[in-house]
Amino acid sequence: MENILGREVPDFIEGYGSVKHFTGAFANLGERKKVATKIQSAVPGNRKLLSSVTEAIAKTGVKDGMTLSFHHHLRNGDQIVNLVMQAVADMGIKDIHLAASGIFACHEPLVPLIEKGVITQISVNTFNPGPVAVAISKGKLQKPAILRSHGGRPRAIESGEMHIDVAFIAAPSCDESGNLNGTRGKSACGYLSYAYSDAIYADKVVAVTDNLEPYPNCPIEIGQDLVDYVVAVDSIGDPKGIVSGTTQITTDPINLRIAKQAAKLIDKAGYVKEGMSLQTGAGGTSLAVAAEMRDYMLQRGIKGSFGSGGIHAYFVDMLKAGLFRALFDVQCFDLAAIASAAENPRHMAMSASMYGNPHNRGCVVNNLDVMLLGATEIDTAFNVNVITGSDGIILGASGGHNDCAAGAKLTVIVTNLLKGRLCVVKDSVTTVTTPGETVDALVTEWGVAVNPRRADLLRALEGSGLPVIDICELRKKGEKLTGTPKEPAFTDRIVGVVEYRDGTVIDVVRQPAG
Amino acid sequence: MENILGREVPDFIEGYGSVKHFTGAFANLGERKKVATKIQSAVPGNRKLLSSVTEAIAKTGVKDGMTLSFHHHLRNGDQIVNLVMQAVADMGIKDIHLAASGIFACHEPLVPLIEKGVITQISVNTFNPGPVAVAISKGKLQKPAILRSHGGRPRAIESGEMHIDVAFIAAPSCDESGNLNGTRGKSACGYLSYAYSDAIYADKVVAVTDNLEPYPNCPIEIGQDLVDYVVAVDSIGDPKGIVSGTTQITTDPINLRIAKQAAKLIDKAGYVKEGMSLQTGAGGTSLAVAAEMRDYMLQRGIKGSFGSGGIHAYFVDMLKAGLFRALFDVQCFDLAAIASAAENPRHMAMSASMYGNPHNRGCVVNNLDVMLLGATEIDTAFNVNVITGSDGIILGASGGHNDCAAGAKLTVIVTNLLKGRLCVVKDSVTTVTTPGETVDALVTEWGVAVNPRRADLLRALEGSGLPVIDICELRKKGEKLTGTPKEPAFTDRIVGVVEYRDGTVIDVVRQPAG
Repeated sequence: MENILGREVPDFIEGYGSVKHFTGAFANLGERKKVATKIQSAVPGNRKLLSSVTEAIAKTGVKDGMTLSFHHHLRNGDQIVNLVMQAVADMGIKDIHLAASGIFACHEPLVPLIEKGVITQISVNTFNPGPVAVAISKGKLQKPAILRSHGGRPRAIESGEMHIDVAFIAAPSCDESGNLNGTRGKSACGYLSYAYSDAIYADKVVAVTDNLEPYPNCPIEIGQDLVDYVVAVDSIGDPKGIVSGTTQITTDPINLRIAKQAAKLIDKAGYVKEGMSLQTGAGGTSLAVAAEMRDYMLQRGIKGSFGSGGIHAYFVDMLKAGLFRALFDVQCFDLAAIASAAENPRHMAMSASMYGNPHNRGCVVNNLDVMLLGATEIDTAFNVNVITGSDGIILGASGGHNDCAAGAKLTVIVTNLLKGRLCVVKDSVTTVTTPGETVDALVTEWGVAVNPRRADLLRALEGSGLPVIDICELRKKGEKLTGTPKEPAFTDRIVGVVEYRDGTVIDVVRQPAG
Repeated sequence: MENILGREVPDFIEGYGSVKHFTGAFANLGERKKVATKIQSAVPGNRKLLSSVTEAIAKTGVKDGMTLSFHHHLRNGDQIVNLVMQAVADMGIKDIHLAASGIFACHEPLVPLIEKGVITQISVNTFNPGPVAVAISKGKLQKPAILRSHGGRPRAIESGEMHIDVAFIAAPSCDESGNLNGTRGKSACGYLSYAYSDAIYADKVVAVTDNLEPYPNCPIEIGQDLVDYVVAVDSIGDPKGIVSGTTQITTDPINLRIAKQAAKLIDKAGYVKEGMSLQTGAGGTSLAVAAEMRDYMLQRGIKGSFGSGGIHAYFVDMLKAGLFRALFDVQCFDLAAIASAAENPRHMAMSASMYGNPHNRGCVVNNLDVMLLGATEIDTAFNVNVITGSDGIILGASGGHNDCAAGAKLTVIVTNLLKGRLCVVKDSVTTVTTPGETVDALVTEWGVAVNPRRADLLRALEGSGLPVIDICELRKKGEKLTGTPKEPAFTDRIVGVVEYRDGTVIDVVRQPAG
């Protein structure tokens, strides 16, 4: 059937099951259950330390068809997913559901495991362009990948929709009883927020560390009450790989102009004020907006409340400068953030559930004033795609995109209108990640488009000097310059199911033709 | 029936239900479920701040027969239990199960509410002698009180055996979204560890604070994802009342001699060594043993691993002196501990579940080397009573007593043999709190008795010069001095059910006759 956004989504998807259709960003709240969990009581005196990942796989009873989970704070430096999955393959186990919060280029060794049927399903909420994403797009995975948001993943775990049999937690610092943290050790990667739900809800929990500390390890992010086994290995990852992608302010003059206009929009809309809160991704233009915000705040003597999300050096500096009371961290994007998380008590961890799960008593995105986001494509109804390229190949997953857009009082997309030879604004995006009802404005080098739902915002921008333009006009302007885009062709096969943060299916990804 | 300790416990207790009988300290481990929980999803933009406790009672739907929970970190200074329960009474609500982790003398205003049937059941794990305990002993409560341990309470909550309808959390520091902590503010009382399970498992959670901080409050012990409502009141408690009972080293020469002998026993048993861990209560003799341990460690250049439990100035000093790597805190016993919890990252909170719940993947008591405990009575099989006086009146609850005795490698009871005109060692204790199989030694001014199960310990003490004596001889010696004790008489009515930490019933408290 066609959902309310006009996306063609079947009621049942082979390898996924029955579909709950997307019915609006805030249509699925109300009372919810968090599922019962199962634990094996510790026997006093029993040791948790095992000699190898293989022993952990055996002891936790991993077998065909199970779901194994991982977190992605080591990002493109992670070595644990490959290590564990290769050991699983070597033990002859197959048909595994890989529930990794993130998958990066470094996970290329998973491709042959997908081809051999060791991995037959993948659930993921952070995806960097690379071989695994391409393999999924090419239909190599037996079941459709489930593409979630940062808040949607813990929601799925906590509701029981994604039951984890065994969680493997890469731990930069851990003691023999399983008290672990991510901020210390040679492979320190920052807070392990995405793994918190896994540790609480998985049937079995294995900490894998390259830094066994004397008991008790301190501080503790995940405690011994949640950990069944500890395995020491030589290396859990390469910290150099943590800083993947750009976390530098753009130097491109066009992008800097976009950033200045976005900042002006935020100001004119009334959000530059005492107690303001802000989140940016790690993109160069978003960071440039953060720098503009900082200047406004310094000039006017404004103290904000918090910065949140993936934390980078720019937010660390703003915290140090007293421009934020605190930071809420789900992952560290750079080494300055990791150091700050280790040292500064006002740089706080939050679980991914506390960050963005709509089905709890109040997630942090709901407290957010301003969210700056990127887009691969945006349509004239302000629906955003950050999942597929215009060729239909999977490039990413929602990450915090649709969580923050739903929660923030002002969600601004900052992007070049023209990328390569393509216009970012389209009549219809290839895939919907984030519904237009949660997106307020789009700032490009060719003008600023405001969602007509935000009449208040349009009024606030009157006389601002900002080049406000209707989004349809912006599309026409872009297409005039790029020519009418060639739409990619798709087969009928569904290779990805895009779950909105509330667990409804907002779209599907079909396999590109040819 | 008579249980394995010879205690007469029926299979069914009116107002409690079917009894699972105690079958041994480690007989009930294995796989366990943690129950599903229920939450009301936040609606973005909705405010949590309510104007009064009465409004919170109304909004959370408190009604007859419900279970309301409270934590006791404000100890004898707490004002929230009385405030909320009086408001409940004023609203005409009755038949409430009061699930307070601790009840103190300051809770005397609950007695008329018990008499009126507003409160008909009480579950508690810390009890100071006082009016509520006396009222229960006199049979005023309609249903038997359930007396648990610090680890048994979260076990009961997490297993679903004790379902909490509404948790009221006294919060010394809280923001409007419900991020709260116990270590800051005019009523700072230290970490709120006992309340963690309540916040996770209760259907509704209300934070009551006298210190509303700007968002986001920092640090966060219980996060906004768990809190439904916030109420600001003038005062949650009197910090002077936190330091209730003695937390001073004894100056009594007899007690000091007991402490010296206990320390020597610990040393001869081989526990004074690198990485040692230690827990004491707040009793003057236990603290004197801690001081002896400190001296041994300093003299020998030994660095311990951790001190745990209720934290006091002596442990804070040992942490500062580098004699412990860290402290594990479930409650602060004095103002020095509260200050340390607020400032020192190595002074760590642990949930009561992580502290002592036998049904998780490893509680901290299992890592404990040496535990020093007091006793109201101890029998010749080393079973200990800390619940009832020799007159049968309720004086206390287990607290961490049976949790720590079960977990620690060496559990030492330190007490005067003669208290008032009574001998502490008896043929049979009035009530069993802690089974003798988990108690290793008793140190008194009249000799040191070792549990015959610990043949290794007896051997280690040979030639130590310690006055080792059979516990039966010790009883004879004591009774010779005091005369044969007059046993209290009891009616058949059960006024208290003593749950062992694993949820089995180890004993019952009957109403004293006359």
